[in-house]
Amino acid sequence: MSTHADANALLAEIEGIGVDEKRGGYSRPVFSAAELELRVWFSAHATERGLAVEKDGNGILWAWWDVPGASADADGRHGAIVTGSHLDSVPGGGNFDGPLGVASALAAVDLLRDRGVQPARPLAVAVFPEEEGSRFGIACLGSRLLAGAVDPERVRALPDETGRSFADVSSDAGFDPSLIGADPGRLAGIAAFVELHVEQGRGLIDLGQPVALAGAIIAHGRWHVRIEGRGDHAGATRMADRQDPVVVAAETIRRLREHTLAVDDARGTVGRVLVTPGGTNVIASAVDLWMDVRHRSEEAVQRIVSDVTAATQCAAEDEGCVVTVTEQSFSPTISFDPALRDRMQEVLTDAPVLDTGAGHDAGILADVIPTGMLFVRNPTGASHTPVETAGPEDVTAGVEALADVLEDLLTR
Amino acid sequence: MSTHADANALLAEIEGIGVDEKRGGYSRPVFSAAELELRVWFSAHATERGLAVEKDGNGILWAWWDVPGASADADGRHGAIVTGSHLDSVPGGGNFDGPLGVASALAAVDLLRDRGVQPARPLAVAVFPEEEGSRFGIACLGSRLLAGAVDPERVRALPDETGRSFADVSSDAGFDPSLIGADPGRLAGIAAFVELHVEQGRGLIDLGQPVALAGAIIAHGRWHVRIEGRGDHAGATRMADRQDPVVVAAETIRRLREHTLAVDDARGTVGRVLVTPGGTNVIASAVDLWMDVRHRSEEAVQRIVSDVTAATQCAAEDEGCVVTVTEQSFSPTISFDPALRDRMQEVLTDAPVLDTGAGHDAGILADVIPTGMLFVRNPTGASHTPVETAGPEDVTAGVEALADVLEDLLTR
Repeated sequence: MSTHADANALLAEIEGIGVDEKRGGYSRPVFSAAELELRVWFSAHATERGLAVEKDGNGILWAWWDVPGASADADGRHGAIVTGSHLDSVPGGGNFDGPLGVASALAAVDLLRDRGVQPARPLAVAVFPEEEGSRFGIACLGSRLLAGAVDPERVRALPDETGRSFADVSSDAGFDPSLIGADPGRLAGIAAFVELHVEQGRGLIDLGQPVALAGAIIAHGRWHVRIEGRGDHAGATRMADRQDPVVVAAETIRRLREHTLAVDDARGTVGRVLVTPGGTNVIASAVDLWMDVRHRSEEAVQRIVSDVTAATQCAAEDEGCVVTVTEQSFSPTISFDPALRDRMQEVLTDAPVLDTGAGHDAGILADVIPTGMLFVRNPTGASHTPVETAGPEDVTAGVEALADVLEDLLTR
Repeated sequence: MSTHADANALLAEIEGIGVDEKRGGYSRPVFSAAELELRVWFSAHATERGLAVEKDGNGILWAWWDVPGASADADGRHGAIVTGSHLDSVPGGGNFDGPLGVASALAAVDLLRDRGVQPARPLAVAVFPEEEGSRFGIACLGSRLLAGAVDPERVRALPDETGRSFADVSSDAGFDPSLIGADPGRLAGIAAFVELHVEQGRGLIDLGQPVALAGAIIAHGRWHVRIEGRGDHAGATRMADRQDPVVVAAETIRRLREHTLAVDDARGTVGRVLVTPGGTNVIASAVDLWMDVRHRSEEAVQRIVSDVTAATQCAAEDEGCVVTVTEQSFSPTISFDPALRDRMQEVLTDAPVLDTGAGHDAGILADVIPTGMLFVRNPTGASHTPVETAGPEDVTAGVEALADVLEDLLTR
């Protein structure tokens, strides 16, 4: 019998952290007390396994299983294999999106040791901050910084919902915001990154399989739409005298649905709407909303956004409101490294290859290093909600698949 | 020269209390630190003037100018004249909606004394809690409790936005929630209530007058619309698999505008929308929004709401969502006491008579005691926004008009 740690048990340990009583599920925004507690939990488990935990300038945690005799520096860690995921969540999310990849990585280390694997190169388990972009508006922020895909100056100034900057919030959480930015030396030392993640759709349900390899991440962007009108009294203001941004926002939502449905397999969502000031008997002065649009064709994404923007501008003109649409992030379609995928497929011969509409740190890093992903079946098909889950047997199958892939990469 | 206090100066004293840096203007919800500070400010000014300040079971403040020699009890205060208004605000409101009536009442007391008026009956300046309904969802809550127009048991259980009950919040603020409810004895002692309020529309601008008498408050209700769908991932969920409550909410907003415009001089507003969980890359699981609808005809209000409800139910069915619409309050059209208005008109011969779409404590009390209102010109025509204002000369004209009316009522 194997004595390796059970990833299911590891996930059970963090079930009480960051529970959101109001929304249900978990709210674990980056640098919150909950996310910091999860980092401590991870570091304790890594240290217990004799892994050397390092926090880099971008707030990414790296837990190193170094090659015996090699030095714990850039030279000694050259040609490293990295796995891992993230611990932050969307507001009211589940316990699997992110943590499953981290827990499975720790369990895979145990399994490799149980198997007596002697790595020929270093292995690191990485934890990336702000993968969801739910606090500062840019998804995969940690991996974008590492890869040099976002300007550190811009990131330091990014405000959270309360108006506090990334620089202030990260500094209060014990990070040094002056250190963020591209780290090409670190990337040069990594031979491959493999992220395991819970599936966020129904692909594996339909195929009747527990684990898949990732083919591509479809193109994905988010746009901030700000509509400014004129605040006024809901009872005393004649309809003709109004400049009501809520009415314009409704039109934006309606048109996004319409233009998304017109493109086969496109996805368009408004999931966040803030009405200012937000009183029942007050005509709003402003509405902020965010559009999330995805499709395999980058051009299709841009066309949907420009069509909705044009329709919103028309509605705003009719209402006497002013609209600004700002692109907050855009990720082109990402095909994971074909050579790495072929090698993973040789190990996991039964695993199907699935595209995904969800963004991942692995997608960002795919631009700069060989990267692959594993997906684990999610019996609800739902994600970013408390009902997101993975069956215990599938979790174990995921750990075994990850260990098989890592063993191959570490020893061949 | 008169030595009476200037209502403009009184308003300037509270300009720093409850400032809302995020929304602009003021947020002074009932029982908040800001509203409690305003109560202290009022009590200090009343006490300085020798008025006897009393807090009743409903959290209403009464500052009594008793008739010399009469006892300070229900008998001695029989046939009283009451003026006053409220100090709470909508989120991001102005400094005039409510406070103008309170400051003008204090200044009118000074002016009556300057004039050497000897009241033949008691006068009270009253401050009502939760006029806006912005914390517990029921407008004019203090006057409704006093008049027996709302069930105290229901009020004690009302939750604020954080889920805390009226009972808990009021208790923490030093009020005894077991004491709330109808107070017919107190009402029986009041001969008339006159509330001065900043105008919340453009009537006095159009007429070129500083002060008006109120004719009627048009019928007004608020409805809570809850739309429940299924939270999911914005990228991984096919459009056909979605049950997105945001899409249904957009339809509710669009239909409310459409059905309101179809009825001459009706007003329909959605000013508060809460999306749960509220992540950019998350299909929402639920939306709560509130409809505010007003018209002189009660039947027209009900028809608009039932038409919008029917349209929302259809949209929800198409989307696989579930909708519940709950009436939170409904106030029929209120015509102020004609005899009292005639008497006020004899004193203020130039003042026009205006209807209003805004609710007021005076409107609630009009059901149970003779009640009248004065409106003071608002040069922006806007209210429930920081730009709401009143010119210094108009404020003074309002104080003089109020003092003239009170002098007549107190001495005839």
